[in-house]
Amino acid sequence: MCELLGMNANTPTDVVFSFTGFSTRADEHKDGFGIAFFEGCGVRLMVDAQSARTSPVAEMVRRYPIKSDNIVAHIRKATQGRVALENTHPFVRELWGRYWVFAHNGDLKGYAPRLHGAFRPVGDTDSERAFCWLMQELAKAHASVPSIPELSATLRELAAVPAAHGTFNFMLSNGQALWAHCSTHLHHVVRKHPFARASLHDEDVTVDFADVTSPTDRVAVVVTQPLTRDEVWTPFAPGELRAFVDGAPIAA
Amino acid sequence: MCELLGMNANTPTDVVFSFTGFSTRADEHKDGFGIAFFEGCGVRLMVDAQSARTSPVAEMVRRYPIKSDNIVAHIRKATQGRVALENTHPFVRELWGRYWVFAHNGDLKGYAPRLHGAFRPVGDTDSERAFCWLMQELAKAHASVPSIPELSATLRELAAVPAAHGTFNFMLSNGQALWAHCSTHLHHVVRKHPFARASLHDEDVTVDFADVTSPTDRVAVVVTQPLTRDEVWTPFAPGELRAFVDGAPIAA
Repeated sequence: MCELLGMNANTPTDVVFSFTGFSTRADEHKDGFGIAFFEGCGVRLMVDAQSARTSPVAEMVRRYPIKSDNIVAHIRKATQGRVALENTHPFVRELWGRYWVFAHNGDLKGYAPRLHGAFRPVGDTDSERAFCWLMQELAKAHASVPSIPELSATLRELAAVPAAHGTFNFMLSNGQALWAHCSTHLHHVVRKHPFARASLHDEDVTVDFADVTSPTDRVAVVVTQPLTRDEVWTPFAPGELRAFVDGAPIAA
Repeated sequence: MCELLGMNANTPTDVVFSFTGFSTRADEHKDGFGIAFFEGCGVRLMVDAQSARTSPVAEMVRRYPIKSDNIVAHIRKATQGRVALENTHPFVRELWGRYWVFAHNGDLKGYAPRLHGAFRPVGDTDSERAFCWLMQELAKAHASVPSIPELSATLRELAAVPAAHGTFNFMLSNGQALWAHCSTHLHHVVRKHPFARASLHDEDVTVDFADVTSPTDRVAVVVTQPLTRDEVWTPFAPGELRAFVDGAPIAA
């Protein structure tokens, strides 16, 4: 099952999600889904606490190709927190005049960080608590948006703290880059020109990317489990954090 | 033209927006629209920088009756800031573990507040600057979510500051109440049982409320210009701020 999906491209790219598997299985994934699309520094959040099988929001996402250069998507199986809109990933906060989008796969046991800063959870999930703590600590570590390598270094240190409480696979984007942290399972692939319209899919979700027409177009896709069999997906190591910029991973 | 619309109900109420006028006039309101629906303390934001005439988001809003108890809607005519997603109202921030939604009608000239707190604009509108300043000053005035009358008293003092720079009609909600501030034009009506399914409309927008079936159901609607002719709309006085709770204005 694809629980987390991130996309980072070097040019705004049409991406269409279809929640294929949901049409045949009523009992699964009834805990909602969410997709955040960056359009420049603006962010469009499509979330629903109801199943993607019946959600009109999922229906719109399927019909409406949104041009985006950074995407974070999440299909929720509730482990902590009630099934409610405020508990549906991705979560969004503003820091340093940028929106930050966060989605988490996993379960943090007994995780109650001290939140004394400007970021408080609205819902009652371990995931939103971890996001608020990361934002609080980033705000303390830097005075304004740092360079991507600097931010990666800070995030790498910080991520280890919640990860000590359980599984902490997460994706984070501010519209400039995509950061992905792996506790257990995460894979990425880079797709470059020439590739024709391609479907990535598992039993639950199909993702269509527009034709990559320019020789310079490049898209990195990060997922919990590989979505295609004919491509080489690079696994993350446990504890690894990678940043993706302009459609490719950058050196640590 | 209806530029701002707020709704506050004492029970989650089905509300369907149709952007009727847009289908016949291509040249107007091409600067986007946005609607924020609170569902409990969660918030669903439907925004588009493109015209409601062609927007698939507007199409979905028309088809999908969302049950909400607090709504803030905005139709944008750009006065300051580029036409872009990050400049599209309503804006959302988190404070004290609550989401806050803000939409503004008007134009603030030479307004550059000192933003030294945890709230920075992502886009480049006067409206988002004013919202960030209000959030910053609220955070300084109270340690956690205050009572609604206390918050109204603080907002009343604060609103006068940006209002000195121009027209500052705004709506603000945290899902518990709706605050509306009038510089020039704002009106409200309270709809109670018994009323059948009712359409509120002007040349641009139609709002359908579900049947109010229970004798205790009550909905307050606040708009820039009255949407019906057969009801008594109470105008705001210039400089007036009102809070609406459980579908009715509360005493100042």
